[in-house]
Amino acid sequence: MPSLLILNGPNLNLLGTREPEIYGSDTLADIEALSKVRAAEHDLTVECLQSNSEGALVDAIQDAKSKHCGVVLNAGAYTHTSIALRDAIASVDLPVIELHVSNVFAREQFRHYSYISEVCIGVICGFGITGYGLAIDALAARMEAVP
Amino acid sequence: MPSLLILNGPNLNLLGTREPEIYGSDTLADIEALSKVRAAEHDLTVECLQSNSEGALVDAIQDAKSKHCGVVLNAGAYTHTSIALRDAIASVDLPVIELHVSNVFAREQFRHYSYISEVCIGVICGFGITGYGLAIDALAARMEAVP
Amino acid sequence: MPSLLILNGPNLNLLGTREPEIYGSDTLADIEALSKVRAAEHDLTVECLQSNSEGALVDAIQDAKSKHCGVVLNAGAYTHTSIALRDAIASVDLPVIELHVSNVFAREQFRHYSYISEVCIGVICGFGITGYGLAIDALAARMEAVP
Amino acid sequence: MPSLLILNGPNLNLLGTREPEIYGSDTLADIEALSKVRAAEHDLTVECLQSNSEGALVDAIQDAKSKHCGVVLNAGAYTHTSIALRDAIASVDLPVIELHVSNVFAREQFRHYSYISEVCIGVICGFGITGYGLAIDALAARMEAVP
Amino acid sequence: MPSLLILNGPNLNLLGTREPEIYGSDTLADIEALSKVRAAEHDLTVECLQSNSEGALVDAIQDAKSKHCGVVLNAGAYTHTSIALRDAIASVDLPVIELHVSNVFAREQFRHYSYISEVCIGVICGFGITGYGLAIDALAARMEAVP
Amino acid sequence: MPSLLILNGPNLNLLGTREPEIYGSDTLADIEALSKVRAAEHDLTVECLQSNSEGALVDAIQDAKSKHCGVVLNAGAYTHTSIALRDAIASVDLPVIELHVSNVFAREQFRHYSYISEVCIGVICGFGITGYGLAIDALAARMEAVP
Amino acid sequence: MPSLLILNGPNLNLLGTREPEIYGSDTLADIEALSKVRAAEHDLTVECLQSNSEGALVDAIQDAKSKHCGVVLNAGAYTHTSIALRDAIASVDLPVIELHVSNVFAREQFRHYSYISEVCIGVICGFGITGYGLAIDALAARMEAVP
Amino acid sequence: MPSLLILNGPNLNLLGTREPEIYGSDTLADIEALSKVRAAEHDLTVECLQSNSEGALVDAIQDAKSKHCGVVLNAGAYTHTSIALRDAIASVDLPVIELHVSNVFAREQFRHYSYISEVCIGVICGFGITGYGLAIDALAARMEAVP
Amino acid sequence: MPSLLILNGPNLNLLGTREPEIYGSDTLADIEALSKVRAAEHDLTVECLQSNSEGALVDAIQDAKSKHCGVVLNAGAYTHTSIALRDAIASVDLPVIELHVSNVFAREQFRHYSYISEVCIGVICGFGITGYGLAIDALAARMEAVP
Amino acid sequence: MPSLLILNGPNLNLLGTREPEIYGSDTLADIEALSKVRAAEHDLTVECLQSNSEGALVDAIQDAKSKHCGVVLNAGAYTHTSIALRDAIASVDLPVIELHVSNVFAREQFRHYSYISEVCIGVICGFGITGYGLAIDALAARMEAVP
Amino acid sequence: MPSLLILNGPNLNLLGTREPEIYGSDTLADIEALSKVRAAEHDLTVECLQSNSEGALVDAIQDAKSKHCGVVLNAGAYTHTSIALRDAIASVDLPVIELHVSNVFAREQFRHYSYISEVCIGVICGFGITGYGLAIDALAARMEAVP
Amino acid sequence: MPSLLILNGPNLNLLGTREPEIYGSDTLADIEALSKVRAAEHDLTVECLQSNSEGALVDAIQDAKSKHCGVVLNAGAYTHTSIALRDAIASVDLPVIELHVSNVFAREQFRHYSYISEVCIGVICGFGITGYGLAIDALAARMEAVP
Repeated sequence: MPSLLILNGPNLNLLGTREPEIYGSDTLADIEALSKVRAAEHDLTVECLQSNSEGALVDAIQDAKSKHCGVVLNAGAYTHTSIALRDAIASVDLPVIELHVSNVFAREQFRHYSYISEVCIGVICGFGITGYGLAIDALAARMEAVP
Repeated sequence: MPSLLILNGPNLNLLGTREPEIYGSDTLADIEALSKVRAAEHDLTVECLQSNSEGALVDAIQDAKSKHCGVVLNAGAYTHTSIALRDAIASVDLPVIELHVSNVFAREQFRHYSYISEVCIGVICGFGITGYGLAIDALAARMEAVP
Repeated sequence: MPSLLILNGPNLNLLGTREPEIYGSDTLADIEALSKVRAAEHDLTVECLQSNSEGALVDAIQDAKSKHCGVVLNAGAYTHTSIALRDAIASVDLPVIELHVSNVFAREQFRHYSYISEVCIGVICGFGITGYGLAIDALAARMEAVP
Repeated sequence: MPSLLILNGPNLNLLGTREPEIYGSDTLADIEALSKVRAAEHDLTVECLQSNSEGALVDAIQDAKSKHCGVVLNAGAYTHTSIALRDAIASVDLPVIELHVSNVFAREQFRHYSYISEVCIGVICGFGITGYGLAIDALAARMEAVP
Repeated sequence: MPSLLILNGPNLNLLGTREPEIYGSDTLADIEALSKVRAAEHDLTVECLQSNSEGALVDAIQDAKSKHCGVVLNAGAYTHTSIALRDAIASVDLPVIELHVSNVFAREQFRHYSYISEVCIGVICGFGITGYGLAIDALAARMEAVP
Repeated sequence: MPSLLILNGPNLNLLGTREPEIYGSDTLADIEALSKVRAAEHDLTVECLQSNSEGALVDAIQDAKSKHCGVVLNAGAYTHTSIALRDAIASVDLPVIELHVSNVFAREQFRHYSYISEVCIGVICGFGITGYGLAIDALAARMEAVP
Repeated sequence: MPSLLILNGPNLNLLGTREPEIYGSDTLADIEALSKVRAAEHDLTVECLQSNSEGALVDAIQDAKSKHCGVVLNAGAYTHTSIALRDAIASVDLPVIELHVSNVFAREQFRHYSYISEVCIGVICGFGITGYGLAIDALAARMEAVP
Repeated sequence: MPSLLILNGPNLNLLGTREPEIYGSDTLADIEALSKVRAAEHDLTVECLQSNSEGALVDAIQDAKSKHCGVVLNAGAYTHTSIALRDAIASVDLPVIELHVSNVFAREQFRHYSYISEVCIGVICGFGITGYGLAIDALAARMEAVP
Repeated sequence: MPSLLILNGPNLNLLGTREPEIYGSDTLADIEALSKVRAAEHDLTVECLQSNSEGALVDAIQDAKSKHCGVVLNAGAYTHTSIALRDAIASVDLPVIELHVSNVFAREQFRHYSYISEVCIGVICGFGITGYGLAIDALAARMEAVP
Repeated sequence: MPSLLILNGPNLNLLGTREPEIYGSDTLADIEALSKVRAAEHDLTVECLQSNSEGALVDAIQDAKSKHCGVVLNAGAYTHTSIALRDAIASVDLPVIELHVSNVFAREQFRHYSYISEVCIGVICGFGITGYGLAIDALAARMEAVP
Repeated sequence: MPSLLILNGPNLNLLGTREPEIYGSDTLADIEALSKVRAAEHDLTVECLQSNSEGALVDAIQDAKSKHCGVVLNAGAYTHTSIALRDAIASVDLPVIELHVSNVFAREQFRHYSYISEVCIGVICGFGITGYGLAIDALAARMEAVP
Repeated sequence: MPSLLILNGPNLNLLGTREPEIYGSDTLADIEALSKVRAAEHDLTVECLQSNSEGALVDAIQDAKSKHCGVVLNAGAYTHTSIALRDAIASVDLPVIELHVSNVFAREQFRHYSYISEVCIGVICGFGITGYGLAIDALAARMEAVP
């Protein structure tokens, strides 16, 4: 079965306890469970990774090239500061979806700019962990359209 | 059955013929058909409106308050220039999702700023007309969570 | 009896129900009643118009030239985005007062810039619907001074 | 005979009476008469439209696609604020010339930026209503060169 | 009888002789006379102060707390440069109205920003000394509404 | 016969061979031939000059005062960097038209600002060498109107 | 015994009553008492001054040169607007510590820039009146290190 | 005994040899010794960590939640570039003090902005390694006040 | 004999001891002696004032109107921050020369902008106290030319 | 006798006829006559050069090194655009005074920035051709002080 | 034999497969082979390192101090975002050359700013992997000149 | 033998005497000697030109097209101000290398932007006159690769 990478960035390991008025009470484990179920509906598997390190996220995206057919990427704070991540995404020939749990556009100014949007195929934000399901649906739809 | 408003803004009536390398070959009629089917899966109906007039879109959002329980809004060019639309969204007590067919963040600088993101619950962009289905799913999920 | 135009822009038809913590509980009908009474104290009549359409507001200002001797203009969101309104004001030889129900300078940054202030004779903001009465007083005082 | 659209935007219906020290004393009727004569010299007809509404101008440009072979567009104030007009121009496969009666670059800073220049074939400004004749000549020359 | 403070800032002692094409021919004494009369109509007294010193204006606002129930403040040039005045206004629990004799928004760019608007209840500008009467009316209306 | 100066700036001597996808295949000699013919239709003669030197262009504009009754100026790159050219234009009492072969507003950001537009009577850009003919027509029309 | 100057700027005389949710409930008298005690622990005396006047603060810093061996300066609002204070600090050969009761970097944008930081030896902010004690410790430590 | 985390960021391992004219001759070992002694005076222990890796610093702050009751954070260069660190601080419910050995405001422009100040309780900078002692005092004082 | 005002602003009382590598070793007394002598050569007297207070400088300029026929103003730091001084200069009908001892354009960025240059007749800077003599010469020359 | 270079830049050859409401009616010949007389009073000779070419002005400054002991430079428009001139001034070890006939700070924004001020010893502007005399006096005074 | 460090940053391990239209088809192994050969011509050895982690690159530069006599640094994306790398370079007393395979100035705006250029001895970009050879030549030449 | 143009811009004729702490003590003659020798190693000849005139540099680049197979261009100050040079480079079909003797990125802000980098094949800066040799090597390598 083809596989997707669900890649979460810095501080997302704290989801559920971290500023719940912004991020809600769902946890990283909930994301991973939800992703597994949703992917299975499309006959896909998922690998779930989380890291607080920019370099490790770059590594993960580079590695995805040979192992996965799409990436759901919640780069967290690195979304707004990492050209290295952007370059990694542009370097691999994979559809990547940018995802945010909160509506970043309703938050601080410095969260409005994303270095990675331009090299992703699309953006989903503001729907809590529901967004991961939508992103998997979108990747699946694209894989059907562009087999 | 509860109803959603699928509201499309300026030049979206030309979808399919308008710069297809950016917007694809799907048409407004395709969006409306897709929306109807997807909404039905959630036991929802949809009303579909399109207008090139900022004022008419403001009217439509104001009217939605008494008729619909959520809005999928592709405000097109007005996304980037209309505070009136933003105020209309903030004025009605409805969940509104901002949607774009293309990945606006991979296009001209002036398409990167949205006046409406801050008052919408979330943003979906870059997935072609598939995005309308995702938005309807997101509204349905939210209606289940916040009945 | 000479006449004034009380012209209200987008979303002001929702006054009273729209974000009452910002705009208060008075309604557009209250504004019109108050304006009529206050104008009568100065032996003036008023015509009250509201529209959500930028073009319709431009039309109204153009038409005012032959029908009214002054305008109280709450352009709402168009204050911050409409050069067309500014040009219309500059095109007619009438005193126009810019009015806002809320104190726009205590709100979002994008509400601090007005395209129309420079071509109006003055600005009144922050006093709720009381401001309409003050504006009518100001126009009446000016008509006495510059008959 | 092939036809051109002469499309005028907000406040241009006031031409001749509106700030004549800037715009001169010629009227919209003069523009239409001049355009008709000049077009005839090139065996072309013209349709003349004016509107204060952004949406109506978008409609007119969309409609031009099936009726005209070129557009002279004086978008007035919307030149500087309307992405919707820009998108309409980009959506139709027609040569459009941006025209201004006054020299906008010798006026306020906010009139120096045009959203539409980039999608028009060229710009003519500062020559009063003479500019409409020049624009028709330019379209005719182009139609000869690119039949 | 409750009392209002009419506080005028730098160079307003020169009113009437100072650049009369901008500020008109009315004098500071005229303002004080007008204010006394208008306040009396609302059963209010006024104290009138003028100073060219930022520190003295800060002192006056601090002192107002125990002596007055509202302030009409024409901070003149300090409007645009004084955070100290802003802090003083925020420090006292009194309604303060920002007033300008001229329409500051039709003048130099550096007069468009006000440090104090955000902590005042509202702004009145452009009506010459008539504005002081409007401001007293507005404070009186507010005292009735929020006794 | 009165005379016009057709003044071309840096790199326009390369026209026809220089980046033809931007500037077309017409040459400077074509411009000069076209200008001569078009001027003759208005009973005007032309002098044609080209220089890569900012100082020489300033000299040419200064000299035009006593020899010509109008200038068509394609200042090329100096349009965007030369205040000296602007001052020269403002120093001579002659109508000058700013001309560009390409549509500069559809090119790099630094070509969008012109130091000279404000002191020229108008701007024509984007029409290839056809623009020189339009500019001569415009100067002739103006000489008739303002003899 | 060597002496320190504890210099407080505008509105700090209101400490304790002024926006206590930001500044806390300690008063200027508390600062002065705390400073006296803490200085005594280092065999230092303190002089405490407060003024709402920029000029008086400049005077105080100039005078400190001959009377004190260090300054704790809470310049309040003048921190962000006074080059005169900066110049005074640079003019006297004394170690000056910039102090703020609140964390200015967690407040309005205009409180983030300080004209004086560059000429002070260091900055302490956000610790309420505890900061004054830390600043005295820091000056004492420095006097030991650089006797 | 309750414990504090003394967390130092990139290049602070070179302290003493690194640009001593800016950072002085004290070393990281000196900081750790000083911190231990000063903490002991308040009946506190310290853990000292240093890393050149942004991710490792994020990890350390996350881990601090369950092990420490306060953090002294010298984030070095990451102060100015790391939103990930900011998010980590906001994620844990601990008082964090931002510390710099040098006076960053007297150095390059890019060192004047801090992503973390807003989520720290306060800032101490410019006092060399003395600042660590002041920060421990401040945390201790706060723990007494907010036990 | 007609009289000039030599007005010096904040920190200029420290001249000679203040940062002599920037301001030189001449003192305020030297300026006053030099000014007296130079003025006498033109049959003029001088009054010399210095203040650290913005308000006192405004007062002095207002008072100059009835006592002096010209002003040499070294506004020091207030040059860059005081709109009140600018307004005072514009309010009195006197020639005012802006003077700086040092070359402010070779110093910090914030010393490059002057609020007062626009309302002064000219600027002299960088010549140490020699500049005061040049300014008196310039005022005398002007009084001869515009008696 | 030592010699000074009086160097004038673009369009200054038109002085007297060029925009006399800005530049006055004195001519370049008047400047040269005045300079000769004033220099003679200090036992100095002058060489006077004018060019419209940036390169020629650079040449002139380079040549001055071996021939002159000071330069009065009115760089005209190149003041605001020429780094080459700045580099030339910095390259020769001569005192250079920046001079402008008009008060450039009371004119367009783009005349407020000077590339050369930082490498000149001082600036004189706004005094018409009188300024050349002041500049020669200033150079003479400096040559006495720094022989 | 003295040694150089050839240090490559994020995504450079993908060279040859990563966006070959920008970066060419040479690989990291090619760089290392080329560097070894070129260094040997100068009797130098090289150590080659590559990492995707900012912290690891900082570590490598710190370590270089005791092992190498020069560094060729292609920091990739961290060039534009890493102050930590800049500080590391400034902390070690080694000549470092900034290198880029592509011409970064012909790419996106965010690649035009480099945090590290100011602390490197020079920059080489745009020559593909040839640049590594040039950089080694430059370091060797410098070692000869500054032994 | 194929030939290269070594083209030096304004003030580079002063090399060796001009600010040697920035530019070193090597002269333009040294550059030309070095270039000749290095070119000969690649069986290339060089022509060396220097001019202080922007127009002459444009001429030289235009002429290079028919005479040379590559250009080493040190445009000096014109690097940062000349769009004309940029256009000339883009107009000729030759590889051009941008070269600077000093590390411009470690100098004033206005030297960080280059108009020409984008149209050159690469940039070499900071290596003194050694850079010319590197540039010739780079051109030679390219000529081998792209014969």
